[in-house]
Amino acid sequence: MELVHGGDWMGYRERFGRDALDFSANVSPLGLPEGVAQAIRDALSLADRYPDPLCRTLRAALSRAEGVPQERILCGNGAADLIFRLVWAVKPHKALVTAPTFAEYASALDTVGCEVKRFFLDETNDFAPTDALVDAVDESIDMVFLCQPNNPTGQLASPELVKKLLRRCGECRTILAVDECFLDFLPDADGWTAKPLLESGDLVILKAFTKLYGMAGVRLGYCLCGDETLLEKMQTAGQPWAVSSLAQAAGAAALKETAYVDEVRALIARQRPVLTAGLRALGLRVIDGKANYLLFRAPADLNERLRPLGTQVRSCANYPGLGPEWYRTAVRTAPENARLLELMKEVLG
Amino acid sequence: MELVHGGDWMGYRERFGRDALDFSANVSPLGLPEGVAQAIRDALSLADRYPDPLCRTLRAALSRAEGVPQERILCGNGAADLIFRLVWAVKPHKALVTAPTFAEYASALDTVGCEVKRFFLDETNDFAPTDALVDAVDESIDMVFLCQPNNPTGQLASPELVKKLLRRCGECRTILAVDECFLDFLPDADGWTAKPLLESGDLVILKAFTKLYGMAGVRLGYCLCGDETLLEKMQTAGQPWAVSSLAQAAGAAALKETAYVDEVRALIARQRPVLTAGLRALGLRVIDGKANYLLFRAPADLNERLRPLGTQVRSCANYPGLGPEWYRTAVRTAPENARLLELMKEVLG
Repeated sequence: MELVHGGDWMGYRERFGRDALDFSANVSPLGLPEGVAQAIRDALSLADRYPDPLCRTLRAALSRAEGVPQERILCGNGAADLIFRLVWAVKPHKALVTAPTFAEYASALDTVGCEVKRFFLDETNDFAPTDALVDAVDESIDMVFLCQPNNPTGQLASPELVKKLLRRCGECRTILAVDECFLDFLPDADGWTAKPLLESGDLVILKAFTKLYGMAGVRLGYCLCGDETLLEKMQTAGQPWAVSSLAQAAGAAALKETAYVDEVRALIARQRPVLTAGLRALGLRVIDGKANYLLFRAPADLNERLRPLGTQVRSCANYPGLGPEWYRTAVRTAPENARLLELMKEVLG
Repeated sequence: MELVHGGDWMGYRERFGRDALDFSANVSPLGLPEGVAQAIRDALSLADRYPDPLCRTLRAALSRAEGVPQERILCGNGAADLIFRLVWAVKPHKALVTAPTFAEYASALDTVGCEVKRFFLDETNDFAPTDALVDAVDESIDMVFLCQPNNPTGQLASPELVKKLLRRCGECRTILAVDECFLDFLPDADGWTAKPLLESGDLVILKAFTKLYGMAGVRLGYCLCGDETLLEKMQTAGQPWAVSSLAQAAGAAALKETAYVDEVRALIARQRPVLTAGLRALGLRVIDGKANYLLFRAPADLNERLRPLGTQVRSCANYPGLGPEWYRTAVRTAPENARLLELMKEVLG
């Protein structure tokens, strides 16, 4: 079984006998909020019961937080669960994804034998999406995945571009899945979200608690969709008890952590330019973007040099559209980022 | 969204404003073991990391506990996750399930458009499986699900019958999935398990922590299979991070709870005959069987009469092969079972 993602801390531990300072997964550097940890401890007293398959309490809280009716919210065992459910519910014959982008769209599409058409983003344009993406949608395409900001480039499609893309999808009877799992790290997320378009077409917005609230190990994601029939199909496309009762309690508590979110957003806004400048000072090409991670070019053996020193970034060698000289690093706290830059200077100097 | 299973405590709470003494879900009546709760609390410090997709620590512990090599173990987000993964990995065209049986086999098979052939168990024989089940397998059948003990009847196929069934499956190139999720509640589980057959055919054994360790809300199941290629297909048939890090820690801790398991088994062995006799004394037909639950016949409005008094059993109205006069009740602690019998006497008297 080959692992295709970052965050393999267990593999590092097996190889080096200790933990790495890990920049290969894009989660909040502030860890699990104490309020969320306490909610999980409190939920242990009812953990012998099956979880509520309808996540009624959590969906009510999400409805208030997102300003979206409960009927248009489906929770899942992380956003990845919802990607697979969407694909199984629709069983598309042909789908469009960008290259590079998050690998699980194509992995899920593969399981239903779907033809995956890749729209290669232009490196000379820093992989920014353009109107050419809209033109790539035709009536043969049943589903489009757009990652906002894109993983691993950090680039965003403008709200106007998303609107055009959705209009084109509407004309072609194509479902548009916009993955906003990393969007809430941006201080101005409200200006970028596709939520205002939820009524107007075959739009599914994917969101996660996993990254923003530092709860990747707990597993909790959700999606928003104006088509309640599609959400019901997604619910029955997998098991009824996908979301553990611990995750449901954690999610409801996380929505109260507004100060934590403000702190994470401010930290990323402050540290992203610092880390970008630091990498550029090492002579590396860093892609412009907005996200809690950034994409850069470096020698193909960078990780092999970094790992013995106790850190690692995400090799992007297995992303279609990239290659062994591309890397993604998370943006973490000031001392952690400084340490990464120090170690990179050491191995590249 | 219609709920088809028992254990809907949230629905009860919404309707009656309090919790029921719930006999509609078949989990251990002793609650989450404290050692498991503590392991989850301890795991919170690493909950910001992605869970290990390969569940390496947990699978090593399971390997020791089950006496099965790690390579033949796959963990899932509850056994239900593995049922869907198995179906998605194989995509059978035609499958055989008994009637009645657990609903998720057919639900999973439906999602791949599989034809579901039902083998109706004979009520006059207390729904016990017979050699006729073996004869129902032919070369058109790609997959068979056998629930051991069967949910909701509590009946077991003898080891000889399972062996014959597996041999027939081997001849027909059919995968046999034996669901042993409730088997470990039996003091003599070792004599019934299909584990000794793991090498000899296309056998997948499904198991769960959910029920035996009172951790249904945590979500953790696993399967054993001699065909490592099939396990790898099941792993890639869904998202990589299905098993939360909390569940992985909980599972490793649960395997140390041997005294807890002994206590649960002894309790069920003691209380099953008591509850059976109590229901029969009320003039009800109770099916013979061995499990931590039992199947009985009662008026079709039994639950409507019980619920206002603070308890509920599982209506089996939606099980193919049963109907609105069939009910399943969990076997719980002595005072809880006595309370159920008291309330049933009140509403049926």
